[in-house]
This record gives sequence, structure tokens and C-alpha cells, in this order.
Amino acid sequence: MSTTPVDFRLLCRRGDFSSNTSGILPSYMQANLVILPSEIAKDFLDLCARNPVPCPLLATTKCGFDELDNGLLIAPSNQGFDIRTDLPRYCIFERGKLKAEVNNCREQWRDDHVVFLIGCSYSFEGALINAGLTPKNITRHQNVSMYKTTKCLDAAGIFVKCPYVVSMRPYKKKDLDAVRSITADYIFTHGEPIDWGFDGADRLGIADLSKPEYGDAIDIEDDEIPVFWGCGVTPQLALETIGHQISGPVITHSPGCMLVLDVTYEQFSETKLR
Amino acid sequence: MSTTPVDFRLLCRRGDFSSNTSGILPSYMQANLVILPSEIAKDFLDLCARNPVPCPLLATTKCGFDELDNGLLIAPSNQGFDIRTDLPRYCIFERGKLKAEVNNCREQWRDDHVVFLIGCSYSFEGALINAGLTPKNITRHQNVSMYKTTKCLDAAGIFVKCPYVVSMRPYKKKDLDAVRSITADYIFTHGEPIDWGFDGADRLGIADLSKPEYGDAIDIEDDEIPVFWGCGVTPQLALETIGHQISGPVITHSPGCMLVLDVTYEQFSETKLR
Repeated sequence: MSTTPVDFRLLCRRGDFSSNTSGILPSYMQANLVILPSEIAKDFLDLCARNPVPCPLLATTKCGFDELDNGLLIAPSNQGFDIRTDLPRYCIFERGKLKAEVNNCREQWRDDHVVFLIGCSYSFEGALINAGLTPKNITRHQNVSMYKTTKCLDAAGIFVKCPYVVSMRPYKKKDLDAVRSITADYIFTHGEPIDWGFDGADRLGIADLSKPEYGDAIDIEDDEIPVFWGCGVTPQLALETIGHQISGPVITHSPGCMLVLDVTYEQFSETKLR
Repeated sequence: MSTTPVDFRLLCRRGDFSSNTSGILPSYMQANLVILPSEIAKDFLDLCARNPVPCPLLATTKCGFDELDNGLLIAPSNQGFDIRTDLPRYCIFERGKLKAEVNNCREQWRDDHVVFLIGCSYSFEGALINAGLTPKNITRHQNVSMYKTTKCLDAAGIFVKCPYVVSMRPYKKKDLDAVRSITADYIFTHGEPIDWGFDGADRLGIADLSKPEYGDAIDIEDDEIPVFWGCGVTPQLALETIGHQISGPVITHSPGCMLVLDVTYEQFSETKLR
């Protein structure tokens, strides 16, 4: 397997890797990808700025190849970097509907496309594992439970009536403070839980915890409570919600098939906070 | 009346002005004030960062006198500036309960206090007036209607289960796009509406629009819809909600009696966005 993010991305570029990046080069940060026609880029930027917990914007770029704005370190330039090829797999949407899954999006790429990288919860899950608080979805090799809530995002441009999506990990009540404090440091990847407990589920309008809208159902034992975090599916659902209004193609990573960055979370946040 | 913000603040410092700043030096920006014991400053900072629409943080300072961080321009230094005296009126809270209203807070000020300035909707109301879309609360000389919603802020440290407060201004449906687009520019003072319409009121859990929790009831005519914005009462209510956990005194401006800054909104946002 690849030993550096650059090598891994070259593997993707050649089409030799096209699946899930969970557990790949775990010390490096991974990011969700959204590529939009420029006409809605400003609205999407505003959506992220107004709703930073579910939509943590890491970086943007207009060109999409070697350079990313907002101080995000990316591959050493002599190795090259191409956002259109360097992820394992991409989804292509037209008018909000999934049209294709492809190994590169060279064909769909347009000069007016704008690239957004969004934080991913893999970062804080690593920290929870290191603290002996491994999320149950990981020990059970399941996908995390995700719920569409009745809480809406604060509207931004064409993004109106977009639901806030949360991920849920069950924890023992006595571990809540530790779980909160560990994930609170990950301010660029959803940060601390937004709410918890069965009363928290009520506040979020989650009617049935055993029926997540996305991912797998994870049972909550008698001595556990559900803990809810902002979830990166939120911006994807927002694009789906208003998709019929977007004329050009929208490109995203394929679920779980993220962009592997050249920085650790610590390096990234030092750069951003400087 | 004073012709510059410096003069106006000197008037406050001498105790010669102690009432509402609505309409005072209208081209200059005004700010809400929150002064907290340092032990909860980090949590409050996180609360604002995670919930920027209802809690738009303009600037912070540890010293509280001449200097404000985060690039906020403040009085020319030869004129001096003292956050403890230069507002018309202050509220002093102990354990979440209002204990006194005072013209200066020199006596309550402690070396471990941290100052937060938070954006105020006076900025965008001016822009609406200039566009011929004067909010009804202003033409009727009433206070804006404000509602405690069932939407909660994303938790941050000790700030848990804090309700999102919205302000409401009725507008004709045909004016909604203009109202949204004008206020969208005011990203440091709540920005565009977060939701609107009677279905918007339902989403926010507002049971009765004629019974606002704060401010005055403003009737909504048959050809109007309610339009909801993030509201600066939100951080105040958050402090009230968790107030019993704060040991030292909390100081805020007295409602409506804001800090008048030395910059226009345009100057401020140029500085922040640079």
C-alpha cells in the first residue's frame, strides 16, 4: 500500500484504487469534495460560512488543480496534483440526480467549476480511538448512523429549507465529558457534539433512533445515550434539496472515497489558526 | 448632539447620556457588549464560532480598554477609549440574574474579565431603510418582535440546550428577494433571514406570532409574511440559561444602549475581509 499521500493519489490517478479511504494513511487528514458551477459558488460559500458545524469548509479553489486557497497545504508542487483524478471515485449529479460514478471527472470538468473541500469526521474518530473511546460503528465495522433532523440550516441564497443532518455514536453517560472535550478540538471537522441524550433526539426531531436515514442502525445499550455530531452529509443533502435549480454538473467524491491530504489535522489547524 | 463617535462616547463616560442609541450617529456601526470572567471565555468564543449567525462576534479583547483584537478599528488612541465607561448604560448579572443597571462598570470590572463585541441588526436596518423597505417596527416606533425558537444552538462547552432567538419583520412576499439580498451583505450582523413564511414559523417552533417573547407584537397583514433573522438576544439568553454556573459577575450593555464604534459597516467589513 502507498506510504505517502502523494503516492496514494497517484494510485487513484492511474485508476488503480477506486474504493473506500477509511483507514488509509490514518495520520493524514481526509476531505469531502464538492465541485460546483460558479453561478452557485457564492451561495454555497455563504451556506458553509453560516453553518460551519455541519458544513466545515477547509479550502476552495477556482482552478482546482495545483493550488488550494485558504492556506490549505497540498501536495509538493513538483509532484503535481489534479482534483479531477486524485480521488478514488467521483459522483456526477445533474439537476440534483446521480447520473454516474466515475474514476476521474476530466470529462465533466468545466472551466467555470469551483472546488470546495469540506472537513470529515475521520479526523476526530482517530482521536477517540487513541483515547480508548472507539466509536461502536468502528468496532462493529458498520457505517455510522446518520439522521435527517427537523432542524434547518440557516438559509443562504438558493439554499433554503435544507435539513441539518447529524451522525450518532452511542456512549456511556460517564464518558460524555471526555468525548465532548476530545472532539471539541476538531473545530475544522464538526468539533464537539451538538446535542445528546434521548431528550437531545427529541430536540432534533429524530422520531426513531433505530431508523437512520443514512448509514447503519447501531443499537444503544441501556447504559448508553446517543451522542449527535454535525455531519458532512448535510451539504450533500443541501445540494440534493436545491439540485433542480442547478443547470451545470455537480461533482462530489463517492461516499467514503475521500481526498487524502498531505497534512495531519494538527498541521492543518496550525496553518488555519496562524 | 455629538457629531463623532469619540464625542458621543465621552458624553457617556461623563454620565451625560444613559439611554437608547437607536438613531444615534446612524452611519456608524454599533455593537452589543458582553464581558465575561475568563474561565468561560473560551466556551463563549466557541459558541460564537459554532453559531455565527445569531452570535456574530466582531471583536474580543483581554484588556478591554484601548485595544480590540480581530482587526476592529476603534477610537483614535489619543482620544482614549474605555469599555467600562464609554457605553450609555450597563447591566450587571450575578449567577444569571440581573443585579443592577449602572452608567459605568468600573467597580465591577476585574482583571480577569474578557470583552466580546457582537454585531447588531441596526446595521442592516439602515440598509433596508435606504432601499425603501423600512421595517414596520421602525415606522411604528416599536421594538422588533423576537421569539425564542425550538431550534437550539450547536452546543459549545458549558453552553448546552441554548435556544436560538430570532427577530421578525413582516414584509410583502414580493419584497422578500430584495430584503434577502440587501441583508445578505451584512454577514457580520446576522446577514440574510434564516427562514420566512408561516411554514418557516412552524419550522422554528413559533406557536403564536402575536406573542413574541421579547420586544413588541407587530401585526402581519394579509399580504405579508413573517421574515426571521438571527437575533443578538441569543447570546444573552445563552448566558442566562447557563448563568447559575458562572461564579464571577457578567456585564452586558443595557438593552438598546449599544457601543458606538468609529467605523461604518463598510469600513469594518473591508478590514475583516482583507
